Amino acid sequence: MAAGIMLFEQKGFSETSIQDIVDMLGVTKGTFYYYFKSKEELLMDIHLRYIEALLENQKRIIEDSTKTIKEKVFEIVYMLIHNIEKQGRQARIFFREMKHLNEDHLKKIVEKRDLFRYNLQLLIEEGMRNGEFRDDLPPSIATLTVLGAANWSYQWFQPDGKLSDFEVAKHMVSILLEGIEKK
Amino acid sequence: MAAGIMLFEQKGFSETSIQDIVDMLGVTKGTFYYYFKSKEELLMDIHLRYIEALLENQKRIIEDSTKTIKEKVFEIVYMLIHNIEKQGRQARIFFREMKHLNEDHLKKIVEKRDLFRYNLQLLIEEGMRNGEFRDDLPPSIATLTVLGAANWSYQWFQPDGKLSDFEVAKHMVSILLEGIEKK
Repeated sequence: MAAGIMLFEQKGFSETSIQDIVDMLGVTKGTFYYYFKSKEELLMDIHLRYIEALLENQKRIIEDSTKTIKEKVFEIVYMLIHNIEKQGRQARIFFREMKHLNEDHLKKIVEKRDLFRYNLQLLIEEGMRNGEFRDDLPPSIATLTVLGAANWSYQWFQPDGKLSDFEVAKHMVSILLEGIEKK
Repeated sequence: MAAGIMLFEQKGFSETSIQDIVDMLGVTKGTFYYYFKSKEELLMDIHLRYIEALLENQKRIIEDSTKTIKEKVFEIVYMLIHNIEKQGRQARIFFREMKHLNEDHLKKIVEKRDLFRYNLQLLIEEGMRNGEFRDDLPPSIATLTVLGAANWSYQWFQPDGKLSDFEVAKHMVSILLEGIEKK
């Protein structure tokens, strides 16, 4: 799986053969087929592991009764950016190579992505009800704006840049909650 | 170019052959090679046309002396979302197939993307100086948050959805400028 992630990210899914993967590991194709039915199944496993880890962490954050909704939104944004730092390759494969999944697998992954988005939307709606958030915005657009800002960081976030993932998340959530405008 | 855009978006760049493109148009490969040296050159032309149109429109917005900085930020976000509505396929190819450009071409495109981002950052810095925007945020993070929210919409914006591109841009810019928090 690690060799697949490395090669899919560097060369692209289509340009990587099972031979490339086993060559990198010094094993035979038989070893590959012992674990995966096909290259597509390996891609599916990478996608599944990525989104399931995100969903599990999101659940833990949302269920924490000691935190405000605002704090939970911060935790989710921080998780996404931190995850991109830790798992940059998986993130890029997740967003870029999804079209190579077969129809059944794609459906499963899209359902889980939708669930992640929907969980965040429920949280934002809760904030609109309990008075933490404005209630004059469509919750779906608020959700997609938060997710877009955070997810886009896989395009630009540099773990060795001037700001840490924590500082980036802090400023980004300050913008999303308080706005860029001078009050 | 239109056939290339359609096929690259549906099948992916690697899975599309020059034969597929000329078959779609009912012409010969000779016709293709009259206009493009290679499939990669066609991809470069698609990328170039996409980013140059964005840069040109951005320049027009920024140079309009009748608008405030906030209005210009709105215009830029609206342009990006509107462009995704109008040119969804190009947008998806732009973000997804960039890795298939050769080194020289990739360098040129990345320079133009960087320029688009930098122009927006200069605008935001101007807003911080003239008192329209908070000056306690790193301008680079403010820029990437705005761009991320808008660009991510190529993943989800549905031209036939409940909200028009104008309404989506209006709510998104309201979030970015004023924040989600209840005042």
